Amino acid sequence: MPDTVTLLIEPLPADDYDTPVDGTFREVDASAPALRVGELSTQRGDGIFETIGVVDGHAQEARPHLERLRNSARICELPEPNLRQWEAAIARAVDGIPSTGEFALKLVLSRGVEHGPAPTAWLHVAPAADFTRVRERGVRVATLDRGYARGTAERAPWLLLGAKTLSYAVNMAALREAKRRGADDAVFVTSDGYVMEGPTSSVILRHGDTWSTPAPSGAILHGTTQLSLFEHLASTGRSTEYRDIPVADLERADAAWLVSSVRLAVSITELDGRGMPSDPAETRALNEYLLSPRD
Amino acid sequence: MPDTVTLLIEPLPADDYDTPVDGTFREVDASAPALRVGELSTQRGDGIFETIGVVDGHAQEARPHLERLRNSARICELPEPNLRQWEAAIARAVDGIPSTGEFALKLVLSRGVEHGPAPTAWLHVAPAADFTRVRERGVRVATLDRGYARGTAERAPWLLLGAKTLSYAVNMAALREAKRRGADDAVFVTSDGYVMEGPTSSVILRHGDTWSTPAPSGAILHGTTQLSLFEHLASTGRSTEYRDIPVADLERADAAWLVSSVRLAVSITELDGRGMPSDPAETRALNEYLLSPRD
Repeated sequence: MPDTVTLLIEPLPADDYDTPVDGTFREVDASAPALRVGELSTQRGDGIFETIGVVDGHAQEARPHLERLRNSARICELPEPNLRQWEAAIARAVDGIPSTGEFALKLVLSRGVEHGPAPTAWLHVAPAADFTRVRERGVRVATLDRGYARGTAERAPWLLLGAKTLSYAVNMAALREAKRRGADDAVFVTSDGYVMEGPTSSVILRHGDTWSTPAPSGAILHGTTQLSLFEHLASTGRSTEYRDIPVADLERADAAWLVSSVRLAVSITELDGRGMPSDPAETRALNEYLLSPRD
Repeated sequence: MPDTVTLLIEPLPADDYDTPVDGTFREVDASAPALRVGELSTQRGDGIFETIGVVDGHAQEARPHLERLRNSARICELPEPNLRQWEAAIARAVDGIPSTGEFALKLVLSRGVEHGPAPTAWLHVAPAADFTRVRERGVRVATLDRGYARGTAERAPWLLLGAKTLSYAVNMAALREAKRRGADDAVFVTSDGYVMEGPTSSVILRHGDTWSTPAPSGAILHGTTQLSLFEHLASTGRSTEYRDIPVADLERADAAWLVSSVRLAVSITELDGRGMPSDPAETRALNEYLLSPRD
């Protein structure tokens, strides 16, 4: 059995409830060319994506990811995805990979070929990197100014904050800058000093018994993993809140994590070169939950 | 003779002065797949580009465009392009199209396939849209907040301001927002009210006999067309300056233009719904220069 599957998808309209979806995607070889140079995804980073964790044959929280894809499509004025079609494509891809182990499944919806008639879409699932060690040992984090003041997203929706677009060059540059500073990952902060998110993760922190994460304004991508964790924490009687978090609050946290769909929860062990307290037992418990078939 | 040419290029190191370049690019059919889904250009908008105007068989200012590509590569920590190789590819592409008319030639340098060994590069030349009418009639412009205060680029180089990256989703969203406002194009302004640039153009303006354009800080892409025009204006005895331009100065200009490599110079006839004076004779003179083989 191969350990990767790539499907090219012909997107159906969101309100198509009848067309048999099986004929709308076809498997291709990921090592062979599949996209034209006129693709707006490649020319303009003009498209949206989601990355879903697959654990032991189960795509985690596929529906929340698809709902977020739909929200990104609205912000970017792309045709809304047909969730029935995407669910079927995810199921087909997951059927094609081994039923044990961790995988990363990526969905992409591009505006299509320039001047072309329709969007382009594809899905690719491949084995996840081995995050066992980083889940145990945590990451050193550098805070980096995202350049925007708090409230910018509401004032300027054309900045597409809150959409998960393919225009991720800045996110990748932030990771390089973090490494240059001797860190492993970054946390973006507003120009006026509030915690936002990591380039590919959400930030959660704990003070005493209270868990918090930055208030989901238009400036922050609402993390599916963060949402799932907060629901889990609340269901086990913990106190959770969304609020504006000044950087000083992160510095003074009793523990803090970056959470994302495939790497899951990793402790922030160092913030801008200063050690942070961590909570290995709690981290293990978070990841135990995140690795369970939770939806 | 076909009117488009697409070349896939195997990038040579910048300091390779010996390898025969002809074997390093090959023509492909633009309507056939040429790129893999693992391409970081398409997954992350992680790459850089240039668009060069080709007029009657002459690629305008190819060298300044290649120098800017090199500068973008430095900012993005991509391998520096081999200019000898790119010049040869441009020459080959221009040889393959008709020797009259206007064309747009696009160069792309991508970080390559994820976990892959090398960057990916290609070139595509195709007939330009017919801009005759817009050069005569001008464009209505909406100013849009870019979300960054003046000075942000210097403070936060990881935002990649000043690099021409493939992460252009915001630029495309700004054009849609401008159209929603009844305009044809946009001008980005800083959050503290200074003129920056258009999503795909530079801004120049004239007060009396003095021509000005926003000071090329790290926040603005230094426009090759603007540079060429300012050299031309200076050589004909006009006064040109780079300075910080508050939006009010643009509103009070005696005339203002958006300039870019393929559309060339177009008058701003309306700014946020208010009429702007324009100077049709000057616009014609600017475009006459820009259409001449100027390097």
